[in-house]
Amino acid sequence: MKIITISREFGSGGRELGKRLSDEMGLAYYDREIVSSIAERHSLDENYVSGALERSVSQSYPIHFARTFSYTASIGVNNSVGLFAEQTKLLKELAEKGDCVIVGRAADVILSEYNPFNLFVYADMSAKIARCIERAPECERLSERETAKMIRRIDSERKKIHGMISDRTWGDRRGYHLCVNTTNVDIKKIVPELARYINIWYGEK
Amino acid sequence: MKIITISREFGSGGRELGKRLSDEMGLAYYDREIVSSIAERHSLDENYVSGALERSVSQSYPIHFARTFSYTASIGVNNSVGLFAEQTKLLKELAEKGDCVIVGRAADVILSEYNPFNLFVYADMSAKIARCIERAPECERLSERETAKMIRRIDSERKKIHGMISDRTWGDRRGYHLCVNTTNVDIKKIVPELARYINIWYGEK
Repeated sequence: MKIITISREFGSGGRELGKRLSDEMGLAYYDREIVSSIAERHSLDENYVSGALERSVSQSYPIHFARTFSYTASIGVNNSVGLFAEQTKLLKELAEKGDCVIVGRAADVILSEYNPFNLFVYADMSAKIARCIERAPECERLSERETAKMIRRIDSERKKIHGMISDRTWGDRRGYHLCVNTTNVDIKKIVPELARYINIWYGEK
Repeated sequence: MKIITISREFGSGGRELGKRLSDEMGLAYYDREIVSSIAERHSLDENYVSGALERSVSQSYPIHFARTFSYTASIGVNNSVGLFAEQTKLLKELAEKGDCVIVGRAADVILSEYNPFNLFVYADMSAKIARCIERAPECERLSERETAKMIRRIDSERKKIHGMISDRTWGDRRGYHLCVNTTNVDIKKIVPELARYINIWYGEK
């Protein structure tokens, strides 16, 4: 079974890379779909689910609690921990369904029992800023400084959530099988090589 | 010009990877050759040169001195700093000669002006121990515990030397273009993909 998790710095193009990789390898792709699915199952607003998962877990609960939390859904989805538990359940359901690429969601940790291939995607700050500004809708463009601040804030939340459920530091090479720096790289062009690399890792050829 | 630097954890197979990569890409390969060349030029013992370069720089000189040191060879090669300066000079001469793969020697930092492709090779401790024990001559075999200790000591020296000449931490993904985890990986099989990846990075295809 091929489970490929993509962890990424905000603005590094990790999501694009994940999507292209799933197309190249013919695998299911899960990203925003996970949030939508949870929102739908529980008749919640997608933005609420997304926000609660990305920010509030780390703000609301002491580390020892999150670490020992058993992930039953009994707590309900009216709070961040309940939502996180629900996401964990859903991730495992998706993994059981078969081969896939999952972007974010701490899937590298949550799905570790499936022995996934863990990819980390990163880039120089200047490249990430340029990418974010280029892709933002005209009306939502931030200054370079504001963009850098946003990137740091989002990645710091990712790091915090990761640290709550794992002994590995988010972004530390040792938690990944491959770390790819996308600075000045055309993601479209490297994806076929990455796909081959992963297939070799899985013992093909 | 293609300058590929390989930084690696001891026992991760970085040297094998570097050698195979140079064969695959048809590039010159420098590793132990650098030490031999310095030893030869100055009629010094190879083991003396090697030991002085790998250990003593970090033990003998305060950080601010190494950082501002101008790398003239005027100091002579009778001490570690002189040898380090000599190595720096030689690395630049080699880079000037043309495309190559250089293993270790902090070449990623020393040759940064050449915009090299910097690869970091690492592995889980258990994989590194197994590799070291497997490859040691029968008469020089250490226990697993001794091997782990040796690996940690050598990598800690590499980290120290790197820290003296760079603001980047040795092994921190951000200093590299690609970080490859060789745990359970057949190096021979991944090298062709890595070669293609690097060629794409250099804008080929």
